[in-house]
Formats: sequence, structure tokens, C-alpha cells
Amino acid sequence: MRRSVVEVKGSITLAHGAGGKESALILKELIFDRVEERLKKVPGGLGIDFPDDGATIPMGDGGFLVVSMDSYTVNPLFFPGGDIGKLAACGSINDVVVMGARPIAMLDSIVVEEGFPLEDLERIVDSFLEVARSERVAVIGGDFKVMPKGQLDGVVVSTVCLGISRRPIVDLPKPGDRIVVTGYLGDHGATILALQQGIELEGGDLKSDVAPLTRTVLPVMEEFGGHVHAARDPTRGGLAMVLNDWAQASETVIVVDGAKVPVRRKVRAYAEMLGIDPLYLASEGAAVLAVSPEVAEEVVKRLRELGCREAAVVGEVRKGTKYSGLVLYRSEVGGLRILEPPTGELVPRIC
Amino acid sequence: MRRSVVEVKGSITLAHGAGGKESALILKELIFDRVEERLKKVPGGLGIDFPDDGATIPMGDGGFLVVSMDSYTVNPLFFPGGDIGKLAACGSINDVVVMGARPIAMLDSIVVEEGFPLEDLERIVDSFLEVARSERVAVIGGDFKVMPKGQLDGVVVSTVCLGISRRPIVDLPKPGDRIVVTGYLGDHGATILALQQGIELEGGDLKSDVAPLTRTVLPVMEEFGGHVHAARDPTRGGLAMVLNDWAQASETVIVVDGAKVPVRRKVRAYAEMLGIDPLYLASEGAAVLAVSPEVAEEVVKRLRELGCREAAVVGEVRKGTKYSGLVLYRSEVGGLRILEPPTGELVPRIC
Repeated sequence: MRRSVVEVKGSITLAHGAGGKESALILKELIFDRVEERLKKVPGGLGIDFPDDGATIPMGDGGFLVVSMDSYTVNPLFFPGGDIGKLAACGSINDVVVMGARPIAMLDSIVVEEGFPLEDLERIVDSFLEVARSERVAVIGGDFKVMPKGQLDGVVVSTVCLGISRRPIVDLPKPGDRIVVTGYLGDHGATILALQQGIELEGGDLKSDVAPLTRTVLPVMEEFGGHVHAARDPTRGGLAMVLNDWAQASETVIVVDGAKVPVRRKVRAYAEMLGIDPLYLASEGAAVLAVSPEVAEEVVKRLRELGCREAAVVGEVRKGTKYSGLVLYRSEVGGLRILEPPTGELVPRIC
Repeated sequence: MRRSVVEVKGSITLAHGAGGKESALILKELIFDRVEERLKKVPGGLGIDFPDDGATIPMGDGGFLVVSMDSYTVNPLFFPGGDIGKLAACGSINDVVVMGARPIAMLDSIVVEEGFPLEDLERIVDSFLEVARSERVAVIGGDFKVMPKGQLDGVVVSTVCLGISRRPIVDLPKPGDRIVVTGYLGDHGATILALQQGIELEGGDLKSDVAPLTRTVLPVMEEFGGHVHAARDPTRGGLAMVLNDWAQASETVIVVDGAKVPVRRKVRAYAEMLGIDPLYLASEGAAVLAVSPEVAEEVVKRLRELGCREAAVVGEVRKGTKYSGLVLYRSEVGGLRILEPPTGELVPRIC
């Protein structure tokens, strides 16, 4: 009953935390498999029985509470376009939004190293609170701990977001669905990776896209009701991760059209320099939706009206055949190749 | 509007995270004062406008959701009586229980150092899940991150507990109330502190009291309804912290009777050796209640029936006069002295 992960490997590696295959494996063996079935969710809700960005709890009035939790360890703490505080607020809000819920409250817990400059901590907290303010999300609690010097590098921020929804999006893509992305992909991942590799970012060239999705994705989900079958924010592992998760879970084949995926020229250039396919790079202000084919173009139009100027249909979901569970990538010159699920140390401490 | 905490001190000290006066000050300046009033809570609920162990959110059906969040950084990770996994589960469950709510779900986020032994992580997760199982609390989500070697000492566990209540306990003690404790105090704090100081614990002598309060405190709260005016688990800063918080917030004087406070002989001995008053030592399986005088003895009797054999009335709440906001300690020989709020580096990384 109790399986040992020690049989697999003796100690934790960076890959276990990078959000790829190894992360999925260790979560399964370390946690999911050890929780008895009836304790994987609250009755009537969703929990770790259906891995998604958030969990749901039925409220007495027919609605649902949606809860997401994440810990942020991004390095560096400050980067073009944001910092760990903004990232923590947006990341947790977006996890609730892609479940089709309106964020109402956050809690955040800060663990900081002794000797950390108060001025920097103020900047981080102010960034966090600025997002809360602009999105009108209450900050209702949290924790604050200090670790002795040398026992922690900087700051770890853990954030919880609570949202409410009449009908959370907890389905999977269906054959025929179109894959819609809300905008440029990979900006956050490229920025952090370049900084970590010591590549100098020329002024304004490249910055994280970290932003809340409350005013773009949420209205679309509300307006297009049951036509949005699945939604996810492509953070760790990027678009490749989301689509592979979906193809496997829904036993479909997802075909993505390389020519249509919006990636900035600069991100492509940095990705090439770093030897990484931009489809594996994280975004922190974008979403991927699987929508009924009959509304796909309308969804894109509405997203553009709401300010997502690069929103596009980038692929489609097909009935699983012998390729069931795979993501196929159609290159700009027309050939098809398998887009593998991310593995290994994608980008350590990217979020 | 935006006040700078840099004026107070330039960088974070261990005292800022120890749970005493300095923690209260930095939380106020860094977070509470920066959140606009209407975003300090969800309408109809409680948040950081009323600092307590948890926040409340009204549910559509007249009930309330209670949410608590904590990060655990205890050092060492394993100690007599428990480990960081058990501590995280119990700590978050207890924060919900002392609000008068029944815990229904938890989320937990693990941040671990690269190279950490999987076997140890398994033990920690198993301890966490064992508490969830015994208390029938679902584990519905969380996160898992790895920090590169040398950037984190061991493991940080952040935990959220969600509970439901028809009527959360969010009042303050009233003049006349009796202060009831559920059992021996200070076991956890004495154990961790002794380990940190390199004092050898003789076999079975001293161990953490870490345990869930679900089957002892919760029934009492339900049975004695409106007679339990306030409840808290005396973790960081111990009984001294809880009573000082209460005396200040309710503008009363709380008198505690030294002879009646249950502290193990061994804990007293270690505390003396370490030069710390045991009333400042943390418990992780005890609660402090402020109850109407007419039910105080019944509450103690019921707690004892439920297995809290050392439950006792240890003090009372008096109308605030010139001593308003103070806690007075009556020593075993009869003299009264002020029991100051905890300050400074009580016990770093105790929880």
C-alpha cells in the first residue's frame, strides 16, 4: 500500500520541482497515491483527484468556492516587468480565474531571510498589494516567518486565492475543440532564464508578462458559458505542458500549428540562444483555452476587444487514435512532429 | 499614506518573525496599514481587520467558511513527539478549530532543498497525511518546489486549512470570564528549544505536545455555544502572548493564577535551565478559552471527560481600570506582577 519513492531515487533533484514529468511523478508517488480516495476532495467538489490549478468546494447556495495555493521561489526576486510579490498575487489569482471563478480573497505567507533589506520587502509587499487593489481582491490573512541568515536565499512567498463561481470550469478538452491562446507566450520564462544565465537584457527588450487575467479571461468565460471546456495558464512548462496534460487526461490528440502561436521575435531569439523551444517557456499573464469550434473565432474577437491583441486560435483537439495522448506540432513548413511533455530542469526557480 | 518601515530598522531580524511585539509591529507597518479598509476582509466576514488565527467568509447558506494559513520552518525537522509534517497539519487544523469551525480540507505547499533525502520527505508527508486521515480532513491541493542546494535549509511547509461553522468564535473575552487551558503548557517550545541549544533529552522525558484539537476543543465549543467568548492555541509566545493580545484588544485586565497553570515538572526544569518563563513557551496541542463564569467548571469537567486530564481554570478577566490591557500574574506565594508581552527572539524556528 505504502510505496516507497526511495526505490526511484534517493534524494530530491531540481527536476522534481521544475513542473515537468519528474514533478508529476514525485507528486503522484509522494502525495496523490498516499491519500485515500475519499479524502482527495470535499464531497461534491474537486481536489487532487483531478489535478488542476485549483480545487473546488460546494457552498450551501449551489455555488462553488475555488481555492488555489502556490509557493513562489523565483530568482531573481526583481525582474523586468515585476517581482516576486506581483508574481505571487497574479499567479494565484490566475489559477482561480482559469477555473472560471471570480477571485474574492487572498492569504499570503512570507518566509524571509534574516538580514533581508526591509526596503526590498516593502517593494515586494507593495507589488502584491497593488495587484490586490487593482483587482479588488481582499487580503484576509497569512503568516510571516524569518529564517536565520544563510538558511534561506531571500524570500519565499506562498499565496492562496479564493474565488467563487456558479459553474467552475472543470472539464477537459473535447474532440473538435479549438485551442485559443490569449497572447504572446514565453515572455516570463525567457526573461527569468536570460537573467539567470547572466545574459544582459537590452532596455525594454524583454520583460515578464506577469499580469492578472481577471479582466480578460474571466469575462470571456462568463459570456461563453459552457463553450469553454478547459482553461489553464501556461506557467511552468509553458504551452507544451498544458497541451500534453490535456491530451493525456482527455485521451485525445492535440495538433498545434506552429505558424499561429504568438511568440515575440525577441523571445524567439533568446530561446534560440538558450537552446530552448519557446513553447516550453512560462507565461504569467496568458491563458490557454479549449473552446467549442463554433465559438472559437468569436472568443478570439472578444479577447481582442478586451485588450488581448495577439489572441489566436493555435490548434485543435482530435479524437484519440493511435496517437491518443500526444501533442503534434505542425511546423511552419508543414511537417508534423511530437511535442514532448517537458522534462528535467526546465528553469529552476522560475516562479 | 505609504509609511516606510525602513525608518524603524533597515533589515529583517529574527525578532520580526518570532511572534512577539516586533512581529506585531512589522506586520502592522508592512501589511495591515497598507491595505485599504474595505479590502481587509470579504464583506460580512473577518480578515486582517481582526487579527486572529483564521479569517472568515460568509457562505450563501448562512454559515461561514473559516480559513487559516501558516508557514512552518521548525528546526530540527524531526523532534520527539512529531515532525514538521505533523506540526503543519495540526497547526493549521487547530487554527480553524479555535475559531469554532470544523476542518474539512487542507492544502499544503512544500518547498524543499535540492539533495534532501526522499526518505525524510516521505516521513514528513506521511506524518501530515496521518493527521489528515485521523481527523478526516481532505487534502485538496497545494504546490511543490525545489530550491537549489545551499539556498534553503531543509524544508518549508506552508499549509492552509478550511473549515465550516454556523457561528465562528470571533468575540473577545468579557469581564468576568474565566480563562481555561486544556492541558499542560510549553511542551513543544521546551522540546524544540532544548534541541536547538544542544541539551540532550533523556528518553521520553520531554516531547512536543503537537496534536489536533478536533476531538476535544471542538465538541466543547459546540456544546457550550455562546458561552465560549474567545479561544486561541498558545503557539509562538505561549500563554503570555494569548493573554496579552486579549487584554489589549478587549481593554480588560487578565489575572492569571500561577499555581493553577499546568506545566510539567520537566518543562519547568528545562525552562529554568534555559532562563525562560514557561508561560512564554509554545504549545502545539493545547488551547486557551475565555468562557462565561457560570459554565467554567462544567467546561473543565467536559474537557477532562474528553481526555484533557489537566484542563483547569487558570485565571479571570476583569474590567479594565488603570491596568487596562495588562496581564497580571499571581505567583504561587501570592504577589502580583505584570506578565509582559513576549519580545525579541523568543525561539527562532520553533514552528
